[in-house]
Amino acid sequence: MQKNSDYNKLLFFDAMKTKLPLLIALFLVTSLAVNAQDSLMIRKIYDEELVNGQCYQNLHYLCKKIGPRLSGSPNAQKAVEWGKKLMETYGFDHVFLQQIMVPHWVRGSKELGEIIDGNKRIPVAIAALGMSVATPADGLTADVIEVRSLKQLDTLGEAAIKGKIVFFNRPFDPRFIVTLRAYGTAGDQRNAGPAAAAKYGAAGVIVRSLTESIDNYPHTGTTRYDKGGVEIPAAAISTIAANQLSALLKQKGNTIKFYFKQSCQMLPDTISYNVVAELTGTENPNKFITVGGHLDSWDLAEGAHDDGTGVMQSVEVLRILKAMGYRPKNTIRAVFFMNEENGDRGGDKYAELAAQNKEEHIAAIETDFGGFTPRGFTFDGASPATLLKLKESWGNLLEPYGSGQLIPGGGGTDIGPLKEKTPGIILIGYLPDSQRYFDVHHSGNDVFENVNKRELELGAASMAALIYLIDQHGFN
Amino acid sequence: MQKNSDYNKLLFFDAMKTKLPLLIALFLVTSLAVNAQDSLMIRKIYDEELVNGQCYQNLHYLCKKIGPRLSGSPNAQKAVEWGKKLMETYGFDHVFLQQIMVPHWVRGSKELGEIIDGNKRIPVAIAALGMSVATPADGLTADVIEVRSLKQLDTLGEAAIKGKIVFFNRPFDPRFIVTLRAYGTAGDQRNAGPAAAAKYGAAGVIVRSLTESIDNYPHTGTTRYDKGGVEIPAAAISTIAANQLSALLKQKGNTIKFYFKQSCQMLPDTISYNVVAELTGTENPNKFITVGGHLDSWDLAEGAHDDGTGVMQSVEVLRILKAMGYRPKNTIRAVFFMNEENGDRGGDKYAELAAQNKEEHIAAIETDFGGFTPRGFTFDGASPATLLKLKESWGNLLEPYGSGQLIPGGGGTDIGPLKEKTPGIILIGYLPDSQRYFDVHHSGNDVFENVNKRELELGAASMAALIYLIDQHGFN
Repeated sequence: MQKNSDYNKLLFFDAMKTKLPLLIALFLVTSLAVNAQDSLMIRKIYDEELVNGQCYQNLHYLCKKIGPRLSGSPNAQKAVEWGKKLMETYGFDHVFLQQIMVPHWVRGSKELGEIIDGNKRIPVAIAALGMSVATPADGLTADVIEVRSLKQLDTLGEAAIKGKIVFFNRPFDPRFIVTLRAYGTAGDQRNAGPAAAAKYGAAGVIVRSLTESIDNYPHTGTTRYDKGGVEIPAAAISTIAANQLSALLKQKGNTIKFYFKQSCQMLPDTISYNVVAELTGTENPNKFITVGGHLDSWDLAEGAHDDGTGVMQSVEVLRILKAMGYRPKNTIRAVFFMNEENGDRGGDKYAELAAQNKEEHIAAIETDFGGFTPRGFTFDGASPATLLKLKESWGNLLEPYGSGQLIPGGGGTDIGPLKEKTPGIILIGYLPDSQRYFDVHHSGNDVFENVNKRELELGAASMAALIYLIDQHGFN
Repeated sequence: MQKNSDYNKLLFFDAMKTKLPLLIALFLVTSLAVNAQDSLMIRKIYDEELVNGQCYQNLHYLCKKIGPRLSGSPNAQKAVEWGKKLMETYGFDHVFLQQIMVPHWVRGSKELGEIIDGNKRIPVAIAALGMSVATPADGLTADVIEVRSLKQLDTLGEAAIKGKIVFFNRPFDPRFIVTLRAYGTAGDQRNAGPAAAAKYGAAGVIVRSLTESIDNYPHTGTTRYDKGGVEIPAAAISTIAANQLSALLKQKGNTIKFYFKQSCQMLPDTISYNVVAELTGTENPNKFITVGGHLDSWDLAEGAHDDGTGVMQSVEVLRILKAMGYRPKNTIRAVFFMNEENGDRGGDKYAELAAQNKEEHIAAIETDFGGFTPRGFTFDGASPATLLKLKESWGNLLEPYGSGQLIPGGGGTDIGPLKEKTPGIILIGYLPDSQRYFDVHHSGNDVFENVNKRELELGAASMAALIYLIDQHGFN
């Protein structure tokens, strides 16, 4: 009885099918050389992952059976042991640990935060910044001074700041398309704000959570005190609470006070590990292509997107290549780096050992921006001419899979030290779509349920495809 | 004390900033002409939306204050009235309704489904397919025959099918990168399966939900009976239940029966409306560029991604242009189509009136694949040469916003009838990333909470940008 209806949607892409030769023609016109063999191999990589992918179920285990795993915690150790076993189960050529010493910061009891408005005390959601010191045991109460930037502290000076709680409240700039840039421009408040406020005698710091999302999750993350400087307690406050506090300050001025209490502390450094798996190169066993993410996570949730997805994608890259019977020319490594969140000891150690063992590193890919749908890769160390060439060859091969953006940019925190230690390396950042990342980043919302299976798998396949191309062709 | 830490992530895109001239150089090399004026205008469009966007809050109202709005329902009427008022509030040049008659199907009581395994009755999640007839009042119990395709029915024939419940259980093919194609290739089971099974004397049909997600939501959608054919009750079954039923059938063969009960029915056609708003063209008031989605939705949830996001983006396109003080050369229309889900009466009427009023239609954009992060647009009616030209000019302008994929493909269900009625028109489908769409599509999971604000806004801005380009330059 009904004629077309939503069923038309079913037919939508039939048009695409019949016009595929045109589509290919379009690619050919704009590309230099599309290698048919590479194209087929990449298709097989995606098929293997989309049909037999295991990273989603592995991530489920990491998130739900292990959970939060801050460096030095018992869970971090569990994750190391489980990660090594997982790699061994896959039967890769070589699985090993790299021992490191890591900082061991603990949050202690759940933090308390309150806006004090005369006789009213309004509880608000806060969480200590990573590496922060505690408040006094019965908490800290003080007047609040709201600022938008570190520079503003200099203008205000000690007279306005001394003894107060400095409230950094500059929001994310929503105009950045890639939200990582909004993080970059707002992040000094969290990272350097407490140290800067301490110089002017502030009693404590609260920082608007580094997210555009208006929600009630505090988003933690590391802050850095100056060496030898005064260390004052610092906490992240949810964006909803930040807006509430700001509105009250506007309305009632300095009759508003803030109270918070946290019992976090630094314990002595402790032993931990990077976890590494290899497919040994058949032609150049001492030349390496690395793909990695970090195994540690903040303690407020499950470290799903940050960076459970990255480690599970990294090992998946090796699984895909092995399942396909691919024998790489060069040695391909998956690395679970330890301690990206509050120390970088794993990345440092990996580079140090690479230099010590005289390993030749061709490229390293880091996946640490969440397990979202792929966009492409950022390159650090490729010349403009090389990048243009890659864009027109590999970029066009990856474009049908949504991963064709090959652009200049950073590699990543964990692989960064390789730049100095293994000169000539090209560092590559996996660039997923960034719109949802800061909704979950460093917050209680970073849970398995917010990861989509297909998005995660497409990311793993994208990296396997890029590594295949690098292994086959190098960058020349 | 800590050195680098996750803060390195903050600096990640600084590299991009300093290399922006290189980025621009890359674009210039591969593009024919980048118009600086257009580039600035597009940047302003995105800024307006990302800073002042209202479609997210409008969507919240539609989902939470109105909710499900199947054609003919009181909620659909509420949505029409609210939609018209919203458009009037924005002060567009012209707001009006187009009256249509729509089918009026109602689900009745919540369906019951059970796998019968000897004395055990296992409740499973089902939902009647749209336009299905009811079961007998006390339900339908029968043997089950599992099939993978309509063709298989012909092989099995009446002897194997008569009196049974046919269970269509061919899953989504996960290898399609664009999931809309997986929907296209699995969809015949839901759309034509019941009619085909009825021909062989089946008593009823259950169809595996059209999703790759393994969850417990039945995903409904329209089925079509043959004119004059026998109409048998048909329901969608969740993927979890489908897997369970299939496993039991494998294990225990035809000792397994299925029971289901549904009380859905067709009521007489009723009056409803398309809702239309215009910014009148300053040079060519009788030339039209349309952007639209559909206002009706399935009844199982809030019709958030299907297609609340589409209608809210459509009106947002006009809001953006008006807020910027842009006076279009041609008349730009936002259309809330009625009845896309089970009848297409709105799309038919819109095209019919366009022909009747001798309107000249340049282009129509449909947004009905969810409010996810943008990828680009599909074009129906543009020659290969035109599309190549657009790809190299507009595609490069839209690429930095993630919307640069301009490829051949369908326009959409609602704008489809314009092709015949207003020859020369170019139909355009807005193409967001499709990975998550069928997790929610037509199911109880299609709720506001699954829409991301920024993704929604980027889609609206992408369409505003494309419409600006069409309005300024046409396709020649």
